[in-house]
Amino acid sequence: MIGTKERIWRTALDLFAQKGFEATSVSDLAGRLGLSKGALYKHFADKRAILDEITRQMAEQDSLAAQKYAVPEETFSANPASYTHTELSQAIAFTKAQFGFWALDEVGAKFRHLLIIEQYGSAEFAELYENYLGRGPLLYMQDIFQTMIEQNKLAPAPAPRLAVEFYAPFTFLLSQHDRGRPFAECLAILGDCLDSFAKRYAIKPNLDT
Amino acid sequence: MIGTKERIWRTALDLFAQKGFEATSVSDLAGRLGLSKGALYKHFADKRAILDEITRQMAEQDSLAAQKYAVPEETFSANPASYTHTELSQAIAFTKAQFGFWALDEVGAKFRHLLIIEQYGSAEFAELYENYLGRGPLLYMQDIFQTMIEQNKLAPAPAPRLAVEFYAPFTFLLSQHDRGRPFAECLAILGDCLDSFAKRYAIKPNLDT
Repeated sequence: MIGTKERIWRTALDLFAQKGFEATSVSDLAGRLGLSKGALYKHFADKRAILDEITRQMAEQDSLAAQKYAVPEETFSANPASYTHTELSQAIAFTKAQFGFWALDEVGAKFRHLLIIEQYGSAEFAELYENYLGRGPLLYMQDIFQTMIEQNKLAPAPAPRLAVEFYAPFTFLLSQHDRGRPFAECLAILGDCLDSFAKRYAIKPNLDT
Repeated sequence: MIGTKERIWRTALDLFAQKGFEATSVSDLAGRLGLSKGALYKHFADKRAILDEITRQMAEQDSLAAQKYAVPEETFSANPASYTHTELSQAIAFTKAQFGFWALDEVGAKFRHLLIIEQYGSAEFAELYENYLGRGPLLYMQDIFQTMIEQNKLAPAPAPRLAVEFYAPFTFLLSQHDRGRPFAECLAILGDCLDSFAKRYAIKPNLDT
């Protein structure tokens, strides 16, 4: 059983991902929920606050997954020390788990579709897209790899290229999954790409930590 | 000086990429062009025919680029023999040229944005997206690599993985360019990724043909 507040943001995400954020009105949403606008405003000040709540949920999922796979939770500039403990095997396990989340989790997949369709419509969605699916995860991997190179865990190579080699298959295969390519097949190819990456760059392969 | 017909489809593409295909009416378009709907219908039967013309232009660009870089123009099933002459260096030069087209050409970039924002809205746009930016180019590279492996030009490896390793950075870096990352920087990283690909798989590197 989910509470009213959660029911509101989940339903809002359905509508945003279908019709777009701008095109969805609070009236549409209240109608779909069978609530008065007044009842809705008790939980959220406006449509914007609903989007903020969804974004917060996504950031929380990200943090929990990072904890689970013992990879850094914060950015490199916020906490560089946390980057020194990361092994490539952990980054790979984390990446595969996040692939499952963005592909299969109902909220994750819809949020991702919303960012994709809205990214050219407003600077705000462009930034959300970058934070969750673009430059955000790219720089995160780049900082992990740069640290690993300095620790002699990874062959010396330009970290910006390594980050693209590692991360681009992730977004590409999510898009293939959206188009109906079976999840198991997409995940298997991603796994092959990541293993191949580890094989060519890891100095001390440590794949079963 | 461009003719009326070209002015119509170029302006339509502007509107489609801004507002979406469904949300753009023939009246909007006629208004923007300063033409009567009657004058517009002399050139195109409907909005659909305009989209078909844009798609045709994009397919033609693709063919001309393929000719220029001497890579196969047709699918593997239509003309397998044409795949036997391709060198990795040609595929790399073609890919870099197409990166410039999709990133910098006004029509190319707008058509790409249109496919991205509409891909979750209709099966038709999902298919166009796949043909131009997804499974279409992916399978094209996969067939080129499979043929090269059989010819002993490329190290034996699963072609589906090779195609993702080769092609995913292309789409990812186009998206980075859309977000304001400088073209020269995106192209340089793409070039590094492709050179690194050639270094690890090409059996007889042949990069200056």
